[in-house]
Amino acid sequence: MTAISLMTDFGIKDGNVGVMKGVIWSIAPHALISDLSHMIAPQNIREAALIFARSAPYFPENSVHVVVVDPGVGTDRRPMAAKLGNQLYVGPDNGIITLLLERAEQESWPLEFVHLDKPEFWLENVSHVFHGRDIFAPVAGHLARGVPLAELGTRFPDPVRLELPRPEQLPNGWRGEIIHIDHFGNLASNIRVENLSKALTKMESITVHLADTAIMGMVNTFGERQPGELVALLGSTGNLIVSVVNGSAAAWLDVKIGDTIEVEW
Amino acid sequence: MTAISLMTDFGIKDGNVGVMKGVIWSIAPHALISDLSHMIAPQNIREAALIFARSAPYFPENSVHVVVVDPGVGTDRRPMAAKLGNQLYVGPDNGIITLLLERAEQESWPLEFVHLDKPEFWLENVSHVFHGRDIFAPVAGHLARGVPLAELGTRFPDPVRLELPRPEQLPNGWRGEIIHIDHFGNLASNIRVENLSKALTKMESITVHLADTAIMGMVNTFGERQPGELVALLGSTGNLIVSVVNGSAAAWLDVKIGDTIEVEW
Amino acid sequence: MTAISLMTDFGIKDGNVGVMKGVIWSIAPHALISDLSHMIAPQNIREAALIFARSAPYFPENSVHVVVVDPGVGTDRRPMAAKLGNQLYVGPDNGIITLLLERAEQESWPLEFVHLDKPEFWLENVSHVFHGRDIFAPVAGHLARGVPLAELGTRFPDPVRLELPRPEQLPNGWRGEIIHIDHFGNLASNIRVENLSKALTKMESITVHLADTAIMGMVNTFGERQPGELVALLGSTGNLIVSVVNGSAAAWLDVKIGDTIEVEW
Repeated sequence: MTAISLMTDFGIKDGNVGVMKGVIWSIAPHALISDLSHMIAPQNIREAALIFARSAPYFPENSVHVVVVDPGVGTDRRPMAAKLGNQLYVGPDNGIITLLLERAEQESWPLEFVHLDKPEFWLENVSHVFHGRDIFAPVAGHLARGVPLAELGTRFPDPVRLELPRPEQLPNGWRGEIIHIDHFGNLASNIRVENLSKALTKMESITVHLADTAIMGMVNTFGERQPGELVALLGSTGNLIVSVVNGSAAAWLDVKIGDTIEVEW
Repeated sequence: MTAISLMTDFGIKDGNVGVMKGVIWSIAPHALISDLSHMIAPQNIREAALIFARSAPYFPENSVHVVVVDPGVGTDRRPMAAKLGNQLYVGPDNGIITLLLERAEQESWPLEFVHLDKPEFWLENVSHVFHGRDIFAPVAGHLARGVPLAELGTRFPDPVRLELPRPEQLPNGWRGEIIHIDHFGNLASNIRVENLSKALTKMESITVHLADTAIMGMVNTFGERQPGELVALLGSTGNLIVSVVNGSAAAWLDVKIGDTIEVEW
Repeated sequence: MTAISLMTDFGIKDGNVGVMKGVIWSIAPHALISDLSHMIAPQNIREAALIFARSAPYFPENSVHVVVVDPGVGTDRRPMAAKLGNQLYVGPDNGIITLLLERAEQESWPLEFVHLDKPEFWLENVSHVFHGRDIFAPVAGHLARGVPLAELGTRFPDPVRLELPRPEQLPNGWRGEIIHIDHFGNLASNIRVENLSKALTKMESITVHLADTAIMGMVNTFGERQPGELVALLGSTGNLIVSVVNGSAAAWLDVKIGDTIEVEW
């Protein structure tokens, strides 16, 4: 029983995600399919890369993750599939895998990249505008049925990588930026637990600067402060986040993706 | 393993779609269920008909499609099930099947229509307001378990059909209308690839008129133009669409469902 | 084959619900998982309690319902699992089960409450902020695999209960309040079919007062009135609701959760 996840920027009203599931089940009738998100901002590869990297590792071994955030559909960008450790990716070669690939390299996971160039694994008629249905869903179905990755196309060594903002070390801290704002209004930065490791032994002496506001001291958990208070803590994926306890930091602070955040101690 | 799809105008916040899945699994514990859309505009049968017709054919043979867009719930409109080629429909007899039925007739698919008039296949207590839960979900469960369509009710010959806007031939082109605006803001018309067939050999000589704008030439794919440019092309279901490359034509042009679009060559 | 439902206030854009499914399938690879709602208003336990009570009973015996509306995450609120009749609950001990528990007590269903205090059934690393992923999803997976409830933790007798607004009897009627506004704009009250039982034999003599409007007579179904008319009727869960036929009562009347509604005869 192979699990498949789907992430797109298709939204949820037009039926296109359901069509992809129909195509997958036509090839792999027993596949269990989970939506990951279909509300990626249109063409926002960076957001897709972030959610892919933090979600895929929680799936069972050999799960297939189909990601269709594809501003280059109908150009010569490569359709690809990849093995990243014990997870499989299917989608455009446009950098969506960047963050998980970096982790895979750090942790020496097995890697394999395949250019999907064998139309016998696609739908018979391939449109110019919906490769999610015509190429990626059928390839995911074949993977779920047990077709080896290497049979689906031609190996290649150099997938496209995004240039992503990196946090910068300061004399007594780090400067990063806001990279995600979630449904609750939590503000996630690209400063990570690894950057803070020593300072975390004295959390009360850390100050977080964001949007003209200084948050004195980090906390371990929301329960250490009262509802409505602004807090800085580590989110569930190891990134420094700024939140309002049982509220929305995004509604409180005037912050957008890309804004600077600084940590000092 | 039978696949079931669900389409409703219920939205996603109130739990009603989940309840239907619970009812289905109570009867057919192994059914794989896909959402198609639950964001059909309230009571908009025409939108449901469009999405049903372009989605159902991508599902495996004998999939069951439950569609609950049902302004007539609690009136004497018939609950029905239908065989349309190798796909099954369960829902109100209010025209949702119109478009797929027309295709089925053109392509001589097998057809069967059944009035759901046997309460032994429903929940024990049937409310006046939620037939999705009380009639259609249980019937879908029984179909998925293998109960033949003909046993679920009484055959009838004449399902309700919607009056749908048809494109009109002009001396050198077609006049149609906008029938769908998708999540990306692509504007889909009822002018189809079949209407354009000869003209498509000289795409550069086609002009598309919409909302006081003239688009000179059609393209095969988004990649032929720069991001931000307005283009006319064939969408993934064979309809003429107007799009902005990596943008929203709906945000650019002041267009609504029903507006006129013309193609000339 | 165990069915699992998921209800959260996580929204649908960040991938967190998909991650929970990945965790469940890593433990119970065959589990069928249904979303119930992920659009519960942030931290709104009362809304979650309402939807849980009216949804869970429609699922197959021994289904597992994971509910993560958890303003107390990272405090000492108990993580719990419960047997409520033939359904299982997994989530925080914060009152979400209140309404279904009351029904269970009235109908003498079997009951069992377990404090989830055995980390061997959780993910190895438990964050302070995402117990849905780290505790509740793995526990649901173990239940779906057949681990008995009693092995997952320590039994306790007294789950937290919400104080919920109760309807109040009047000389010739009831005074209640609006407790839910659904996707269609239907206004649901806490006055129930049991309260109205005798009066329902003369529905035309019932008057419903809401927001300075008096609705004369209740109806059985939308079909008894014309589209656009305001009606009072019993909703699919036995609550008195106020609706506009094929329209939105919420858009018509200026009503919010907690507003008073009165029925008299």
